[in-house]
Amino acid sequence: MEIYFDNAATTQVIPAVSDAVVRAMTEQYGNPSSLHHKGYEAEMAARESLESIASLLKVQRGELLVTSGGTESDNMALIGGARAHQREGNHLITTAIEHPAILSTMKYLESQGFRVTYLPVDGQGVVRGEDLRAALDEETILVSIMYVNNEIGSVQPIAELSRIVKAYNPKILFHCDAVQAFGKYPIRPAAEGIDLMSVSAHKFHGPKGVGFLYIRDKVRVLPLIYGGGQQKDMRSGTENVPGIAGMAEAARFCYEDMENRRRRLYEIKEYLAEGILDLGDTCIHGPRGEAGAPHVLSAGFAGVRSEVLLHALEERGIYVSSGSACASNHPAVSDTLKAIGCDKKWLDSTIRFSFSDLNTMEEAGECLRALKELVPALQRFQRR
Amino acid sequence: MEIYFDNAATTQVIPAVSDAVVRAMTEQYGNPSSLHHKGYEAEMAARESLESIASLLKVQRGELLVTSGGTESDNMALIGGARAHQREGNHLITTAIEHPAILSTMKYLESQGFRVTYLPVDGQGVVRGEDLRAALDEETILVSIMYVNNEIGSVQPIAELSRIVKAYNPKILFHCDAVQAFGKYPIRPAAEGIDLMSVSAHKFHGPKGVGFLYIRDKVRVLPLIYGGGQQKDMRSGTENVPGIAGMAEAARFCYEDMENRRRRLYEIKEYLAEGILDLGDTCIHGPRGEAGAPHVLSAGFAGVRSEVLLHALEERGIYVSSGSACASNHPAVSDTLKAIGCDKKWLDSTIRFSFSDLNTMEEAGECLRALKELVPALQRFQRR
Repeated sequence: MEIYFDNAATTQVIPAVSDAVVRAMTEQYGNPSSLHHKGYEAEMAARESLESIASLLKVQRGELLVTSGGTESDNMALIGGARAHQREGNHLITTAIEHPAILSTMKYLESQGFRVTYLPVDGQGVVRGEDLRAALDEETILVSIMYVNNEIGSVQPIAELSRIVKAYNPKILFHCDAVQAFGKYPIRPAAEGIDLMSVSAHKFHGPKGVGFLYIRDKVRVLPLIYGGGQQKDMRSGTENVPGIAGMAEAARFCYEDMENRRRRLYEIKEYLAEGILDLGDTCIHGPRGEAGAPHVLSAGFAGVRSEVLLHALEERGIYVSSGSACASNHPAVSDTLKAIGCDKKWLDSTIRFSFSDLNTMEEAGECLRALKELVPALQRFQRR
Repeated sequence: MEIYFDNAATTQVIPAVSDAVVRAMTEQYGNPSSLHHKGYEAEMAARESLESIASLLKVQRGELLVTSGGTESDNMALIGGARAHQREGNHLITTAIEHPAILSTMKYLESQGFRVTYLPVDGQGVVRGEDLRAALDEETILVSIMYVNNEIGSVQPIAELSRIVKAYNPKILFHCDAVQAFGKYPIRPAAEGIDLMSVSAHKFHGPKGVGFLYIRDKVRVLPLIYGGGQQKDMRSGTENVPGIAGMAEAARFCYEDMENRRRRLYEIKEYLAEGILDLGDTCIHGPRGEAGAPHVLSAGFAGVRSEVLLHALEERGIYVSSGSACASNHPAVSDTLKAIGCDKKWLDSTIRFSFSDLNTMEEAGECLRALKELVPALQRFQRR
């Protein structure tokens, strides 16, 4: 049996998505820029897919820029946004718990002469409005705050934070990395004061290698990639029609009955959380219940090294994560856990369980049974 | 019936490729950065795919950087290469007939203070060694010359041109846009003196949205995209495993019996070329026979506007291109045709036919029959 509880790292593509990708690769295979019928078919497939995503977000199709994924979207928002507005100032604001796609890009921008403020978060991983307000200054041109944290599932009050920014200076761009939020929450970029928003398809049962950046109408960013002028000169390169079609299919899937799906994810998460707390000498990082994201559960197991537990679970066909997969190439202590003021003992003994609509309560039960056996044994073993 | 003669714009994905993509999306769906078995499976799928491409090119797997396609590869080579070496000089050299992914990126680099020389070409679209030699100076840090031209199929003597560059100064980076050449020619980057080489999967029956940049060992370029540190920190973002697997499958397909495949393409091309010349008041741009690429045929039909002929052929289910698809969003007179000193009368009356292994001589015959009917009628019509 396989239990895949690493859905914040990536998800399995569902059959409807796979079918859409295959259709675009083998039937609608033209180049959208070609003037003939085969090109038109491909252009229409891409256009209808984007229309459908735009309608879910209540935005215009023209406000969606297709990219190769969340990381490119984040880079385009930060580098493209900062460069487009560098005459107005050189100050950027983000948080201490962003994804490496934001943090590494901010480091790059610092090397290019920009000044970056990294906001702290409270013990639940939430940005305080007063900290954001205090960080804003006359040089601030862009604020980037993630919707859902990928490690502990904290959810930022995006609309409220954007209001603080816009009240200070409506010209400041507000970017939101929504990679872990899209498909889980009915985000309304316009209503929530979001100017730029990053999304990645493979986090919600879509294909890898495709995502988008929402760019609110009239918001100016510069391109990162130059060429044939596709996507209104903002992102050159032949459009990834199969990826776009697959992403749209995945988005439709997530938006169908979203409330009930979210409730089911919370049931799985809370059931597992309760069971883990019952084990003793364990903790849950980040907000409990509906204050946190439905699909991310971060738990500490005192006296058990994360990697050891990860591999012990793996032997039973249960796949989880220590930290976030995106940083696993650079094993290091989690900045997010440090930022929430996590006791030292949890830093190397934390596991992330992350869920999707393909998971079941039975799987959560199976996982809990495994933990009940493994954790006490590993604790005894490691304490010797 | 459909005859797809626009394979230089994009190609149909073959079943083996589609199967590999589906397998990676639905079975090997883990995140290569994840530490568990699902991640390992995905990592192995990507690694084996890259090994297989590397072995076809006789290079090391670690020399291949996966990108979202040819345009990103070109941008990374030029912007990443220029930035990494800007202390050594600010002069770049390319040709007048490059793809927009090169030309637009060079324009961007000019706006950033780099100086760019655009080499002329001869009447067959080939760069003269003496022009390249004369353009090199002490400030030159990078030379970018395409392998096969996408509009007229001229083939550059890459090894010879690289020798000229390296004889002048071995530190100058030699980049080659091989988007139209990979899969048609058994390119050996190391033997041909190529430091950087761009390839796009969808030009050879692979998926859209994926490609690679060959970066010769020890050649230094800077990243364009920052994040989780994937691909040795050179190109962050979750690896597009399905795309990589599909690209490898497509590469294998092209390399099987490559010589005979190329011969078949030349047969189609020359048969069509002869037939077009027989129509009268027509011409072939670029080199004939094996001096040109096997899959690109550019033909002028005096007195017939390209778009009119394109749509007349389309009505018969024959798909061709006027100019290159990549620039079709910006309909303009072809820089390549101007660069080869093409007579004015051909500039707006040229059609590109481009072939793949999926095409047949029967299709060429059918296309010729259509041209024999359409061209004289359209010539009469437009001359009135």
